[in-house]
Amino acid sequence: MESLHLVSRERQPQDTIVQVGEVKIGGGNTALIAGPCSVEDKGQIMTIAQAIKDSAQILRGGAYKPRTSPYSFQGLGEEGLRYLQEAGRATGLPVVTEIMSETEVDLVADYVDMLQIGARNMQNYALLKKVGAQGKPVLLKRGAAATIEELLLSAEYILAAGNSQVVLCERGIRTFSHTYTRNTLDISAVPILQHLTHLPVIVDPSHGSGDWNLIEPLSLAALAAGADGLMIEVHSAPEFALSDGPQSLKPEKYRALARRLKRLAAFLKEDQP
Amino acid sequence: MESLHLVSRERQPQDTIVQVGEVKIGGGNTALIAGPCSVEDKGQIMTIAQAIKDSAQILRGGAYKPRTSPYSFQGLGEEGLRYLQEAGRATGLPVVTEIMSETEVDLVADYVDMLQIGARNMQNYALLKKVGAQGKPVLLKRGAAATIEELLLSAEYILAAGNSQVVLCERGIRTFSHTYTRNTLDISAVPILQHLTHLPVIVDPSHGSGDWNLIEPLSLAALAAGADGLMIEVHSAPEFALSDGPQSLKPEKYRALARRLKRLAAFLKEDQP
Amino acid sequence: MESLHLVSRERQPQDTIVQVGEVKIGGGNTALIAGPCSVEDKGQIMTIAQAIKDSAQILRGGAYKPRTSPYSFQGLGEEGLRYLQEAGRATGLPVVTEIMSETEVDLVADYVDMLQIGARNMQNYALLKKVGAQGKPVLLKRGAAATIEELLLSAEYILAAGNSQVVLCERGIRTFSHTYTRNTLDISAVPILQHLTHLPVIVDPSHGSGDWNLIEPLSLAALAAGADGLMIEVHSAPEFALSDGPQSLKPEKYRALARRLKRLAAFLKEDQP
Amino acid sequence: MESLHLVSRERQPQDTIVQVGEVKIGGGNTALIAGPCSVEDKGQIMTIAQAIKDSAQILRGGAYKPRTSPYSFQGLGEEGLRYLQEAGRATGLPVVTEIMSETEVDLVADYVDMLQIGARNMQNYALLKKVGAQGKPVLLKRGAAATIEELLLSAEYILAAGNSQVVLCERGIRTFSHTYTRNTLDISAVPILQHLTHLPVIVDPSHGSGDWNLIEPLSLAALAAGADGLMIEVHSAPEFALSDGPQSLKPEKYRALARRLKRLAAFLKEDQP
Repeated sequence: MESLHLVSRERQPQDTIVQVGEVKIGGGNTALIAGPCSVEDKGQIMTIAQAIKDSAQILRGGAYKPRTSPYSFQGLGEEGLRYLQEAGRATGLPVVTEIMSETEVDLVADYVDMLQIGARNMQNYALLKKVGAQGKPVLLKRGAAATIEELLLSAEYILAAGNSQVVLCERGIRTFSHTYTRNTLDISAVPILQHLTHLPVIVDPSHGSGDWNLIEPLSLAALAAGADGLMIEVHSAPEFALSDGPQSLKPEKYRALARRLKRLAAFLKEDQP
Repeated sequence: MESLHLVSRERQPQDTIVQVGEVKIGGGNTALIAGPCSVEDKGQIMTIAQAIKDSAQILRGGAYKPRTSPYSFQGLGEEGLRYLQEAGRATGLPVVTEIMSETEVDLVADYVDMLQIGARNMQNYALLKKVGAQGKPVLLKRGAAATIEELLLSAEYILAAGNSQVVLCERGIRTFSHTYTRNTLDISAVPILQHLTHLPVIVDPSHGSGDWNLIEPLSLAALAAGADGLMIEVHSAPEFALSDGPQSLKPEKYRALARRLKRLAAFLKEDQP
Repeated sequence: MESLHLVSRERQPQDTIVQVGEVKIGGGNTALIAGPCSVEDKGQIMTIAQAIKDSAQILRGGAYKPRTSPYSFQGLGEEGLRYLQEAGRATGLPVVTEIMSETEVDLVADYVDMLQIGARNMQNYALLKKVGAQGKPVLLKRGAAATIEELLLSAEYILAAGNSQVVLCERGIRTFSHTYTRNTLDISAVPILQHLTHLPVIVDPSHGSGDWNLIEPLSLAALAAGADGLMIEVHSAPEFALSDGPQSLKPEKYRALARRLKRLAAFLKEDQP
Repeated sequence: MESLHLVSRERQPQDTIVQVGEVKIGGGNTALIAGPCSVEDKGQIMTIAQAIKDSAQILRGGAYKPRTSPYSFQGLGEEGLRYLQEAGRATGLPVVTEIMSETEVDLVADYVDMLQIGARNMQNYALLKKVGAQGKPVLLKRGAAATIEELLLSAEYILAAGNSQVVLCERGIRTFSHTYTRNTLDISAVPILQHLTHLPVIVDPSHGSGDWNLIEPLSLAALAAGADGLMIEVHSAPEFALSDGPQSLKPEKYRALARRLKRLAAFLKEDQP
C-alpha cells in the first residue's frame, strides 16, 4: 500500500504513545475505557463514573448519538457534554465522546479530552480532516465493512492533517453471521494492525458482539491477542438504557472484569517470549 | 420496521416522482444519468457532456471526491462545480454531483440540480439532515455494507428534515466475492425497495461492478428487474481518467448501450403482464 | 488461474451445448427447468409435471434432500426417483434430480436424465469425481460462499474425470444482507462466468431469493444479463409443501412467467448489438 | 432452534469429554493437536511427530486432501494413513486425519484414532451419517460460510446417527476482509457454542488466518476466550510443503508456542472468577 506514509510502521518503528489527560495508550500500557453508550442525565453519568473510577482509566459517554433511525434518542448534545465533563472532573478521569459533525468539532473539543470518530463516519473525510486539524487525540473506530487498509488510510487522513495522536479501534465487522452477535469481532485485526502501524490498537467488545454475556471472553481474547486497551459499555441499569442496553455491563460486573483483565495483562507482560 | 414512516409504501401507495430540472425519475420513467467520475477540467466535462447529451437525461460529475487515500486526486472543488454547471447549461442537461461536507451544501446546491450522498456518507446523519433541510432533490447511494432497512432509514432522515425528493441508488454491496468485481450488485434490492417504499430506485452498475465489460449486462438486468433508472460512468479517455477509469465506458459505447436500454425499457413497458 | 484448463474459454472458444434428453442448454438456447423442491408423492409430481409441461423444457424434483436438520423431511429416496421418472415419461420432459451420495450415483443415473450437485456439495470432491466418471450431464450449483474460481475448479474436477456435459448454476451467495432474501443473487456471476468458460450458465432465482415475490424480477434480470436458462421451483400447493414452500410459484403463475420469459428471450435475441 | 436436541446444553448441562486414545478433550482439559497439513512421505511425518511429541497431545496429518484444484497434490491416500499410524505409534500420540469419502470411512477408521470432517464437507450429510454410524470420535470443522446453527445441526446429524464423541472446530469464516487473512477467525463462536452445546470446541488458527505470523496471537486469544484446545499446522520445512506452507509453524516455533499456551492455560484455570 503505497499511500500509507505517516501511519506506517516502516516509517516509524517505535510505538506511538497517545496521551489522553494523564493516561497513556500504546507502548505496552493497557488502557481501559468504560462508560455508558449515551449520557442520559447528570445523575446517570455521575453514578456510573463513580462506580468505575477505580477500574477504568478513561470515561466514555455519548452526547451526539449516530442512530439508524431519526426517531431514536439522538443524545443530549451540549448538555450531555457538560455532564460528561463534570463526571470526568469529579472522578479525575479524562473523557472521550463521539463527534458526528464538522461544525461541532470545536465545541466538543472544548469539553472533552479525546474525540471519537464512530464506525459510520470512518470515511467521512470532511470530518477526518477537521479532527486532524485540531489538537485533541482521536479515537478512530473501524467501519463495519472497512478493510484494514481503509482503516489505516482514514487514520492517514488525520495524520496528514497534522494530528498524530490517533488510536485505532476494532469493533466488529459485518458478516453473514449475525444471529448471535451484531458484528463479528475481527480479532486478527489486532496483530495485523500492530504489524503495519505504530498507532495503538484497542478493541470494543461491546459493539463487537452486542451481547453483554460475551464481553468477558472477548475482552480476555483481545488482551491475549495483544490489544493496547479495551472500550467497554457500562450502565447502572441496562434494562432502562436509552441505547445499547443489551450489550452493557453493570458496574459491579465491569469491576470484576477489570480486575481479571489487569491480572491477565500483568501475566502476559511477564510472560513475553 | 416501525421507524419507517415517511418513506413507506404503506403510507403513500403511489410512486413519488422526483423532478430534476425537467427530468422526471420514478412512476414509470426510465432515467439515464451519465458522465465522468470526476470533473477534471473544463474541456473534459464539456466534451463528455456533448457526446452523451442525446443519450442521457442527467449529467453527473464529481467536484468533491471521496477518496480512500488522502493522497489521491480530491476533485477540483468549486472550480469543478462551475465547469459542471457550464456543461449542463451548454447541453441542456440538469446536473448532479456528490456533496461530502455539511459546510458545502449551500454552495453546491447553488450550482447543481441534484445533490448526491455517496455510499461512504450514507450514515453521515449530520449531512443527511442538512440536505433534508434544503430544496434540491437528493440521490442517496446505499452504503457498501448497508442493509435495506438502513438505506430506508437514512432516506427517512432526509424526508423527516423536510425534503421528500429522494432517489435511492443500489451500487453494489461488499461481500466475500471481489476478485472480478469491486462490489456485488444486489439486484434483488430493486424489487424489494420498490415494494417497501414509494421512492424511485436506480442502479449504478459502474460502482456495482468496477469493470466496464460488465456495464451492459448489468444495466440490462437492472431495467429488467424494474429499476427506475441507471447511473453510468462515461469518460472520453478512460485510460487517462483521474479516478474510476477501469469502470468507465467511452462515449460511443455508452451511446450504443443507451439505445439498447431504451429499446428494452420500451419492450418491458409494453409487455407488462 | 493456471489450474483452469478444460473449462476455460481460452481453450475452447465456442459454447459447449449440453444435451439433456432432447433439450439443448447453451449456445443461445434458453432452457427453463421447473418443478417442485421435493417429490412428495406420485400425485404431486404428476400434477405439477402436467401443469408445466408446455412451459418448461426440463422437470426437476428432489428425491434425496440435503436438509440442514436431520429431523426435516429427507426425501422419498428411490421411490421419489421412480415417481419423477414416471412424471417425466408421461409428459415427455427429461428430468433432473440432486445426488447427495457417491454410493447412489449409479442408482440415480438410471432414473434421470441429468444429475444435480447441490450448493452444499460443490466441494465434495469424491462426489464430483464420481459424477465425472459417468455419462449423464451434470448441473453444478455454486456453493453459498464459493468464489467464481472455486466454482470453475469444481467443474474442472468433473471435466477432468471425463464428463464435459456440465451446466453451471448461480443460486445466490451468502452475504450480510439476508433480512429479505435467503441469499444475495450474484447477477454479475453470469457474464463473468460466460467470459471465463464455455460451459452454459443458468440461474436459480428460487434459492437466489427464497421469496416467490422476487422470482419474476430476478428471472427477467437473469435473462437480460445473458443467462442460458433458469431453474424455478413450482408447487401446486406451496402452503403445504414439505420443503421450500415460501419460494415456490404456483403453476399458473409459473406459466404466465414462462410466457414473459420467452418473449423477453426472443426480444433479446433479436436485439443483439 | 427446535431441531437441536442431542447437542443441546439444555438437554445435557455437563460438558461432554471426548476421548481420543488416552487424551481427553473438553471438561477443562486443553488439548493441543499439531502436525503437517499433508503427510508427504514417511520421513516427513516421523520427523515432525518426534519434534512435537512432548508439545502436543494429538498428531494430525492429511492423507486425503480436499484441494480446490484437481491438479493440486491430493494426498498419499492409504500409504499416508500407514505413515501417520506409524508416526503415532512411534511417539505414543493418537492421530487424527480428514475423511473425504463415504466409501473410505471404514478404511480410515482402521488406521486412526479420530476422524476429521473438513470445512468443505460440513454439510455432506451422507458423510456425516456414515461417521455417525461408526465408533471413532469425530472432529467436525465449521464450514467457511456456516452459521453457528448449521454447525450444530451438522453435529446433530452425527449424534443422531449414534456417535456422541464429537469435537467442534472454529477455523475462520469467509468475509469481505481477506487481504491479510484467508478467513476471519470468529472468536465469538467459542463462547457462543459453549453456551449452546456440551460438546468441546477447539480453534484452528492456521486455517483461521492462513499466516504463520498470526498463529501465536490467535492461539492465545482462543484460549483466553475459553477454547478447549487448538489445532495447529506444523512443518519442518514450510517452504517446501506440498500444501499450506505459508500458514505452518516450524517445530521449534511450535514448541515455544506450546509452552506459552500451557502457561496461559494454567493461569486462566487458576484465575477463574
